[in-house]
This record gives sequence, C-alpha cells and structure tokens, in this order.
Amino acid sequence: MKNNAIQSPAIEYAATPKMGTTLLRDIKTREDLSLAYTPGIADVCKLIVQDESALRTHTFVRNNLAVISDGTAVLGLGNIGPKASYPVMEGKAMLFKRFGGIDAIPIIVHAKDDEELITTIENIADSFGAINLEDFAAPRCFHIEEELKKRLSIPVMHDDQQGTAVVVLAAVTNALTLFPHQQKDTKIVISGVGAAGVAVARLLIASGYSNVVMVDSKGIIGKHRTDLTSEKVELLKVTNQHNEQGTLAHALKRAGVFIGVSKGNLLKAEDIQRMDKDAIVIAMANPIPEIMPDVAKQAGAAIVATGRSDFENQVNNALAFPGIFRAAIDMNTKITQKMLVCAAQAIVAYHQDHLSASSLLPSILDDGVHLAIANALKANF
Amino acid sequence: MKNNAIQSPAIEYAATPKMGTTLLRDIKTREDLSLAYTPGIADVCKLIVQDESALRTHTFVRNNLAVISDGTAVLGLGNIGPKASYPVMEGKAMLFKRFGGIDAIPIIVHAKDDEELITTIENIADSFGAINLEDFAAPRCFHIEEELKKRLSIPVMHDDQQGTAVVVLAAVTNALTLFPHQQKDTKIVISGVGAAGVAVARLLIASGYSNVVMVDSKGIIGKHRTDLTSEKVELLKVTNQHNEQGTLAHALKRAGVFIGVSKGNLLKAEDIQRMDKDAIVIAMANPIPEIMPDVAKQAGAAIVATGRSDFENQVNNALAFPGIFRAAIDMNTKITQKMLVCAAQAIVAYHQDHLSASSLLPSILDDGVHLAIANALKANF
Repeated sequence: MKNNAIQSPAIEYAATPKMGTTLLRDIKTREDLSLAYTPGIADVCKLIVQDESALRTHTFVRNNLAVISDGTAVLGLGNIGPKASYPVMEGKAMLFKRFGGIDAIPIIVHAKDDEELITTIENIADSFGAINLEDFAAPRCFHIEEELKKRLSIPVMHDDQQGTAVVVLAAVTNALTLFPHQQKDTKIVISGVGAAGVAVARLLIASGYSNVVMVDSKGIIGKHRTDLTSEKVELLKVTNQHNEQGTLAHALKRAGVFIGVSKGNLLKAEDIQRMDKDAIVIAMANPIPEIMPDVAKQAGAAIVATGRSDFENQVNNALAFPGIFRAAIDMNTKITQKMLVCAAQAIVAYHQDHLSASSLLPSILDDGVHLAIANALKANF
Repeated sequence: MKNNAIQSPAIEYAATPKMGTTLLRDIKTREDLSLAYTPGIADVCKLIVQDESALRTHTFVRNNLAVISDGTAVLGLGNIGPKASYPVMEGKAMLFKRFGGIDAIPIIVHAKDDEELITTIENIADSFGAINLEDFAAPRCFHIEEELKKRLSIPVMHDDQQGTAVVVLAAVTNALTLFPHQQKDTKIVISGVGAAGVAVARLLIASGYSNVVMVDSKGIIGKHRTDLTSEKVELLKVTNQHNEQGTLAHALKRAGVFIGVSKGNLLKAEDIQRMDKDAIVIAMANPIPEIMPDVAKQAGAAIVATGRSDFENQVNNALAFPGIFRAAIDMNTKITQKMLVCAAQAIVAYHQDHLSASSLLPSILDDGVHLAIANALKANF
C-alpha cells in the first residue's frame, strides 16, 4: 500500500477478513469426497439434466444471491468504477447474511456499454437464486433493471430504487399516522429524480398517494418543461396533477411531506416554513442531508428523518432488502410492485406499538422486522 | 421434483446445504454497521480509488476464487450445459475451501459463442482473486484459457488441463523411480488428445521427457495425418520424434508408460503385453478406465493407476489445485509452466518416504501435501 494511503476505523476494520465461505459438511473420508465431489456428484448433475428445478433444491443456488454493481453511482461518491465499489457490495453481502440469512456474493462488472453489461449479468445469472442490483446510475439503471427482469426468471431488484421506495413508503405512512395532513391527498414533494426518486414516486402512487410533485435540479417536473427525459415524461402522467411550475421553493408551498433524494444543504429554514404546519421532512442525501434535522425542527417540522445512523429516524434500505429477498428466494418469485407495498405495510404493522415522532421506523438491528417482512410476503403472495 | 427423479446417496447428501457464506465479524451495534457498511465503508472505497491494490488487501477478493464452467465437458457426462454442471463447481468449491482454505464461488456461464463467453468472464473477473476454469471442452478450452490469461492480471488455470498434468507428472516421476525404464527417454504413450491429453504432453515435455507419442481416436498423431487440428499440428513439433504411424496398439510397442485420458475399455491384456516389461499404466478415463487394474496387472503391468477412489493409486486433480491456487493467490502471480513442474516435484518430494507400487501418490485427504505444494511454490517463485 502506498505511504500516503488514507486511514480510518473502517479501513482498519477491513484490513482483516469480514466474510468467507464455510463448509456445512466436513470432508474427512473418501466416502465424504465421493458424496461431495466425484464420483457421486455426477448423480446430482444427472438429476438437474432431468429436472432443472433441482438446481434450486440440491445446490448452493437454493439460498444464494449476487450483489452486483458497475460502480457508476456509489453512495455519495458518484461514478468511482467497479473496483472501488466492491467494498459496498461486500458490506451489503454481510447485511444480507446477517439480517436475511442469505448467502450473498459481491460481484462487480465492467462492460463497454449497457447491452454488454446486461448480457454479462444474464450470462452468469443461473449461478444465483436472485440478483440485487446496486449503485447503478440513473437513467441507465431503469433500462438495465427492466431488461434483466424481462430476460431472467429469478428475482431481480435494484435496491437503490425499490429498497429505498419501500422504506420511504413505510416512513411516510407512519409519519402521516402521527400527523395526518390530508392523508392520501397530502401534497408530497420529492426532490431528486434519479433512481431513488423515480422509484419512491411510483411506489407512493401505487399505494394511493395522489398528490406527488417532483423536482429536479432545474425545478418542478411539469408540462412546461421541454428538457425532460422519457422517464420524466412518463412520470408526469401520474405526478404534478395541478400543473405547478417553478423552483423547489415553489413546490414546497403547502406541502405536507418533503422527500429528499438529491443533494446536501438544499433547503433553508424558510423552505420548511412554506410547508404545511407540522411538516414531515425526510431528507436522505448522503452524507449531508438536504437540511440538518435541528434546523428543520426549529423551522417547525414535526418529524425529521435522514439516511444517517447518528440522527434519530434513520431511513435506510437495509430495513427492507433482507426480508424482501428472503421471501423472494424462498418463493422463487419475481418482485412486484404489490410485494413492495406489502413489505412497507409489514414494516408499519411491526412498528405500530412503538411509533413516535422520534421513532418513525424500527431499527435495522431488530431481527424481528426482517422476519416480519418475509413472513408477510410469504403469507400474501 | 418430478416423481421419476433419480435417487442416490449423493443426491440425498445434496438435499441439505453443503456450503454457505459466513460472517467473520458479528454485526450487533450501530457501530458495527457503520464499519461494515455505511458510512464507514466509503473510506474503503476511497482507498481503492487511490490504490487499486487495496481490493486485494481490504476486501473478500483477498482470498476468493471463481470456479467457472460452461458445462461443455463435465466429468464423463459430456456437454450437459451450465446448469447441470453446477454441482461439480460447488463440489470443487468445497474442496478449494477444505484443502486450500480458499473462499471459492461456483459460477456457471452460458454464452452464444466463445468471444461472448470470454468477455463475460473478463467482465466479472475483478470480483475474484483467481479463476479456476473447469470442464470446458477441447479444443475451445485452449483458446478460452489463453485469451483469459492474456486479458486478466489474476491467476487463471484450466484445471482439467494443468491440474491433471501436474498430478500425472508426479505419478510418472514416482512410477519411473520404482521402475526406471529409460527414465527421461522412456517411451510414453498418451491416449486422448483433449484438454487433459494436450496439457499432460506439454508438461511432460517441459520437464524433460523426450519420447512422447500421442494417439487420438483415429490413431497415432504423426506427419502422415492430414486431419489434424492446429493444436495437434503444434504438438507434433515436440512429440512422435520417431515418426510412428498406426493404431494405439502400434504405439504401445515397447512403451514404458501408458497414460489414458480417453475412454473406457480401450485396452486389452495383449496391448499391455506389447509394452515394455514392468509397464506403467495410468488409465484415467472416468468412470470406467481404459483398462481395469486387475486385467492390466495380470498382463504384466508393474503399476496401475486410475482416476477412481475405489482402486489403489488414484490420480486426481484434487491433489494439485488447492495448493497451486493457494500459492498463486497469496503471491498474486500468473500460473506458469515452471510453477506446474515445481508443484509436481513438491508432490514427489512429499511422498518419497511412502512411495510404493501400491502407493504412487499421497492421499488427497492428507492436508500436508496441499501445504507442501503451496510452500514449495512460494519458496521458488
């Protein structure tokens, strides 16, 4: 390692192994060898030739998953490339094991274009029981996810989209239980129209929220805009029903909920004051939220949530993905929008007796919530 | 599973999990989470941005490996496709862990052609510390392996080629110690010019054996043949120095060593009788060897070895690949022909005090031999 290499507690932590593979049967005798490997293993091959589903009942595929990234939108770091994204995939694999009991394998992919990327993932997909896409930049991520869902029979989810959306939906539902505003008609402003923003909007709308206004770096997404991508034009059909124009500040007027998946330090106290009384602020930009919780609170926000673990009300995907994939793998089913809504409802139901303005969601570390999500999905799908 | 599904002890064994991933650090607190995952993990990403080698010092890549197949030449089963080949890759991954301490991940690949296959493997290669290619059919396997070695900086080996070659070289060396024949000038006949046959010939020649004759299903590989692939033409430059023609039976005349990597029941007692006195017969066709040991012995063979664990003198790749990859990963070096010769010599040295006609090689289950190979390679390269 170079002498000028950076140091930090997480780097020290990573300097010794964090995960590994393990044998669940010992290999001590020739008999063991002949069952685990040749010649016995040929029988398992023949079984799969006869019945492909044995790949999911008689091999490691039964419980494994790939955490795949191309490193184009990693945390707050941006497009740092596949190699530098690997630690995030490994960390995520650890969370899959810890909270979902899933044998997750980090895989990083580089490819010359989207088609080659999709083909590469498609070509190795039989090795896994499910695929968690991670940290793919928008708008490419929409096409990549859609194509893979089309081409593959195993569960595929882009966690930055659907995982985020589930946890935000649970957070919004809980917040509106405490401070009802206009319930399903509450004006919800989403700042950021990347992977997360688009998925959050879609899931909110799928679960009945009718008054969503989206804002990107150029302002409100509306019919007046001539610079919209096809994805944004599509979203416009179901958002901004009152045809609003202007900046984020304009959008916030009389909004009940602000959802930030954009960038740090975007809002001031006066922006919060433009919102409804008892405003709900979910500011998830990482590591610096769109507004700091103390500033938002002082400006009158009733509830403030962020993506950070060092503030109250952390909104983090890790609350959703282990349980969702646990169920999807066990049922070997594609992950649908209805399943995502069900997962959010399971989080809400699990937390109902503990809900407060400073405890909007269960802790990621609570094993019960992951199990509750998996069980709800398995009971309903 | 279908009702007519086959049953066997290995299938029963495979019905419950054989391997998994495991966390080497527990995740119990928010502090643990922030070190294993966000926000701390961003520091490890930044470290890799600054110094790519940190991927090998600070992540799971430090000790992992992919066991990759396209399922085109699986055991004695032939081209059964990627899915049905998976159990072999998983079994091999277990052996990598058990005997080499390596976190091996089974990966199966389907692709429309060789170029797409190579590109797919190349595109995911950064996820691994090394690649073990497995059960790729000849002659494609030569090009695939060569291209991947060219394009990738990590160790790559096609075990059906190089792994087999190392163990055969050790077996031949030991057998000629017991029954010297003409030592390096001993006539060695190789039946089978597939992945294993070609690699065995090359390695024998690289370690000084000068009198190798190769035979395929159409007879001796010689200048008289007009149907040779480029691979076989290449081999001809260093084999069949006496310009022999004819069948396998012709080739065996006065041969000291027979090496079979072809198909079962190819030889009769009279073929062995054509060979030199005290013939050495290494008949590795699976599951039925080229000649059964009792028949060969009765016909005068001094030493008979097969690929099977239920006869004496098993010649199995598993004796070589764990130690070779252990060393290659630890040194992060490409695997060269000289390293393969060194690995064979390490097996020979390890077994010298136990060598006999009925104990030609150490047992795969002997942990010491894997360590001896790894240590020899690390000491010499």
